[in-house]
Amino acid sequence: MTDISIAFIGLGNMGGPMAINLAKAGFRVQAFDLDATACALVAEHGAHIADSARAAVEGAEIVISMLPASHHVEALYLGSDTAPGLFDGLPAGTLVIDCSTIAPTSAQKLAAAGESRSLAVLDAPVSGGTAGATAATLTFMVGGESSALKRAHLVLERMGKNIFHAGDAGAGQAAKLCNNMLLGILMIGTSEALNLGQSLGLDASVLANIMTKSSGANWVLEKYNPVPGVMEGVPAARGYSGGFGTDLMLKDLGLALEAAITQRAPVPLGGLAESLYAAHSASGNGLLDFSSVLRMLQPRGA
Amino acid sequence: MTDISIAFIGLGNMGGPMAINLAKAGFRVQAFDLDATACALVAEHGAHIADSARAAVEGAEIVISMLPASHHVEALYLGSDTAPGLFDGLPAGTLVIDCSTIAPTSAQKLAAAGESRSLAVLDAPVSGGTAGATAATLTFMVGGESSALKRAHLVLERMGKNIFHAGDAGAGQAAKLCNNMLLGILMIGTSEALNLGQSLGLDASVLANIMTKSSGANWVLEKYNPVPGVMEGVPAARGYSGGFGTDLMLKDLGLALEAAITQRAPVPLGGLAESLYAAHSASGNGLLDFSSVLRMLQPRGA
Amino acid sequence: MTDISIAFIGLGNMGGPMAINLAKAGFRVQAFDLDATACALVAEHGAHIADSARAAVEGAEIVISMLPASHHVEALYLGSDTAPGLFDGLPAGTLVIDCSTIAPTSAQKLAAAGESRSLAVLDAPVSGGTAGATAATLTFMVGGESSALKRAHLVLERMGKNIFHAGDAGAGQAAKLCNNMLLGILMIGTSEALNLGQSLGLDASVLANIMTKSSGANWVLEKYNPVPGVMEGVPAARGYSGGFGTDLMLKDLGLALEAAITQRAPVPLGGLAESLYAAHSASGNGLLDFSSVLRMLQPRGA
Amino acid sequence: MTDISIAFIGLGNMGGPMAINLAKAGFRVQAFDLDATACALVAEHGAHIADSARAAVEGAEIVISMLPASHHVEALYLGSDTAPGLFDGLPAGTLVIDCSTIAPTSAQKLAAAGESRSLAVLDAPVSGGTAGATAATLTFMVGGESSALKRAHLVLERMGKNIFHAGDAGAGQAAKLCNNMLLGILMIGTSEALNLGQSLGLDASVLANIMTKSSGANWVLEKYNPVPGVMEGVPAARGYSGGFGTDLMLKDLGLALEAAITQRAPVPLGGLAESLYAAHSASGNGLLDFSSVLRMLQPRGA
Repeated sequence: MTDISIAFIGLGNMGGPMAINLAKAGFRVQAFDLDATACALVAEHGAHIADSARAAVEGAEIVISMLPASHHVEALYLGSDTAPGLFDGLPAGTLVIDCSTIAPTSAQKLAAAGESRSLAVLDAPVSGGTAGATAATLTFMVGGESSALKRAHLVLERMGKNIFHAGDAGAGQAAKLCNNMLLGILMIGTSEALNLGQSLGLDASVLANIMTKSSGANWVLEKYNPVPGVMEGVPAARGYSGGFGTDLMLKDLGLALEAAITQRAPVPLGGLAESLYAAHSASGNGLLDFSSVLRMLQPRGA
Repeated sequence: MTDISIAFIGLGNMGGPMAINLAKAGFRVQAFDLDATACALVAEHGAHIADSARAAVEGAEIVISMLPASHHVEALYLGSDTAPGLFDGLPAGTLVIDCSTIAPTSAQKLAAAGESRSLAVLDAPVSGGTAGATAATLTFMVGGESSALKRAHLVLERMGKNIFHAGDAGAGQAAKLCNNMLLGILMIGTSEALNLGQSLGLDASVLANIMTKSSGANWVLEKYNPVPGVMEGVPAARGYSGGFGTDLMLKDLGLALEAAITQRAPVPLGGLAESLYAAHSASGNGLLDFSSVLRMLQPRGA
Repeated sequence: MTDISIAFIGLGNMGGPMAINLAKAGFRVQAFDLDATACALVAEHGAHIADSARAAVEGAEIVISMLPASHHVEALYLGSDTAPGLFDGLPAGTLVIDCSTIAPTSAQKLAAAGESRSLAVLDAPVSGGTAGATAATLTFMVGGESSALKRAHLVLERMGKNIFHAGDAGAGQAAKLCNNMLLGILMIGTSEALNLGQSLGLDASVLANIMTKSSGANWVLEKYNPVPGVMEGVPAARGYSGGFGTDLMLKDLGLALEAAITQRAPVPLGGLAESLYAAHSASGNGLLDFSSVLRMLQPRGA
Repeated sequence: MTDISIAFIGLGNMGGPMAINLAKAGFRVQAFDLDATACALVAEHGAHIADSARAAVEGAEIVISMLPASHHVEALYLGSDTAPGLFDGLPAGTLVIDCSTIAPTSAQKLAAAGESRSLAVLDAPVSGGTAGATAATLTFMVGGESSALKRAHLVLERMGKNIFHAGDAGAGQAAKLCNNMLLGILMIGTSEALNLGQSLGLDASVLANIMTKSSGANWVLEKYNPVPGVMEGVPAARGYSGGFGTDLMLKDLGLALEAAITQRAPVPLGGLAESLYAAHSASGNGLLDFSSVLRMLQPRGA
């Protein structure tokens, strides 16, 4: 048991196991979520459950949040019509680590608001999914001051195994959305290649093996093959359940396109990928793993 | 010096060094190309230069070809308005290895014509570029009978280091076009992600490093970064000269789309990639390395 | 009854009513199709049915063909492995009008072959669908010599109401594929706008009416609205039956993309449209009217 | 001179001539813009120039605004960090007509805020460009209550000739963004078809004429041909100057995509169009008319 007190706000599929890993590592964790079941799960592993977000941060040196979207995070820290924000009550020097995936501009807004109150704020979105959250093998992409990141290392390394300093405030979010836009493209591009190969009579496993050792090599081919029967333990092996939902990929592509439109940075493949996942979601596949997008390309009945 | 006689037709940027590697390995190589300079280079390394393709195959157990496109290969082996094809004169049992990148249907046509004359025909397109051809580190993707491939191993392993059996006749070409379509997508998708990241203030090297260790990882990020200054020894480091020309990528994408249209296999990202390289080529960049497509995305003057 | 003899080869959904219109107009029509039922329908309206294509052209001043694809047309006129072509038996001066939709290069090949035999050859693909074929309101896009087109007018005007001279041999086909590629884009683009509008709470009829009078105006909005309930008499009003099948649109887009790839003319929206219709066809909608592509964009159950 | 008092806020390229038309029609116009030159032009035609937006609305029955983007409009009416909004000072019953092109959600927010203060608020974006603004031939797409639109008719008909009631609050903006997204697609699609036709040897005027009378017909072909030399009086006839700038089209496509992403309405062609205009703008063409996007498709030097 260390004597560092951590507040953890947001105990969903990702936040829950992350908070548990901190509790297991001996930190004093004061956790909060609106959902009582989520709280109960975390409590079983030694975290203390607070009655509110404001109660959770009481006495905490470090505040960590893992929430669905920009507006939740802004409401939590900066306040909303119905409640004041946490930033107003935090003592100077508190380290705030937001692990949610939100817009870079939103992260920058938080950092600026934090700075004016002498808080140290980091954006630290993750990749690695619920499996990575549980196994404490997440990748953190961090934006903010080096000094703040140095303080954060102690806790981040209990939840993940790769910690990257992407740059200043918002840079963690920027890196995350670039990476996930690219992932969204890799999945559809790889699906197109595998499906075209199959239509030409190739065996999907043989083709995947060849491309993995050629210039088509990529993470999807190596770790997340979308064709059922090629790889074990991936969503394609279990009817595309679990994994990273199509609607979550759509959320991340939405953030990427919003940034791209604002910056006038052309993303033709990224934009098309977004449209294709949207059509796939509109057909009722929003909760299936995003690798199910392969089905859009397949002849009916395949 | 082995006592195996090999005919080698087509001594261009790829075929030249491949023939030289065979000559160096001690095979008796009878080579032919319409271009005298190309012939002279190969002759320096011990190959015998024949006066014609027909003369080159005289007495050869194995015939290898490396030509620009389907119609050249069909004209060589099956004949044209002006000349009969080589297949008509070859003794039964001759092994024919076509290393050109051509349409799978064209390769199947050759294989069928060969079979009816008791020839063993393989399609064996390569990846690895001129560097791989020179260093004998090419990847061969082979379509045809296993028995023929067994015979071919002896010579293929002197020109490359990976030899994949993709399937029946035409399967080598099918695998090649799937891989190269995917490569064409990876290059643009990676360029979009890196350019978007830069527009958001990220350092391209830092972002490339993060994505290489995340779910955006792919061959382009690891081996062929398109942003000048990030990686040494790649075309981006020398003004996009050398490498794999935009027009060559366009040719391969054209083959992939032709196959996709025929098979009714949707390739939305592949089709868009083809259009983007076409626009890039139309702007005068056809001879630059295909990684120069990044420039299409960049603000003017970048 | 005029004393002009016309051979008509190909009596399908388009060719049948076209041949009937010529027979009704008093021309001596000698018709042929491999399908006996198709022949019988045409015979009812006064055409003479021949036993073969070769018998049909016996004594004809004008030969008209309406066949599915390039290879059928080339086989008919230039011959195949199993039969010699009609061109070899036609008397000099015969006017040949091919109304099929085929590749411009194929039309040019026919024209050149015809010229060397002193035949007058026109490519004259149509638009207007089966309704236009029946009502004799087709549009003809004609490629070839002006003098030949002058001779053709007499018969074309009995089958259609707009006759355009697009240019030299192949130009009719070129114009047709440009138009149909654009039509394929208009249909998807209009569907996207209408569907987006509906998702934002607009009434599809109101929005269609506004856009028809604004800069979004186009043929699809005015004549072929894809939203059920907005317009009467269109395929959308009858479950997308009848009309112009998705697979026929795919065939035309395939010709356009083939030409675009050969010419290095970028067609990013055309290429994407092709991919989307291919995905729609792969989902089992190949025989539905192409306006059913709207369904790809709609939320499930809509 | 009527005795109706109108406040007009925003006197740019569009707002200026609109305000002038109202002044010429005899309304008492109290105008305001931050730019003194813009104000002076309007003053010449009889409008009274106010010192501030707040001064302009003093005594006005009707308030009209024409501003660049959502945040300007929201700041004007709802207030910002530096100034309270106009809504707080307006007497109940005032009619507010916002002609800016903004997000539908932003228009709905204004309408709701207005309703709570008993103001009648309409969103009434326009199409027709500066030429239409000057000639009083604009098209208005109006969202809001019918009763409010009835009151607005009197002034709208002095500025435009088509007035459409699109639906409830925000519906005018929704219709506008659907129409302009479709226009953005029509321009690129038509450019692809014309450029492909030219590459196949067709004359652009001949092809445009054929398609205008066929199923490819659309507003761009009829009113705004992008190929220089085909049509007089369009931007293509004067080096793509004037007209509707690429960056303005990009702004409208940005609004459309934002709405599409939020609604999960797939817009694959719209998204690709956005990317292509962004690339065109990134190449330094943001201020050229949007029909200059044709150049992206043309071979260099064309």
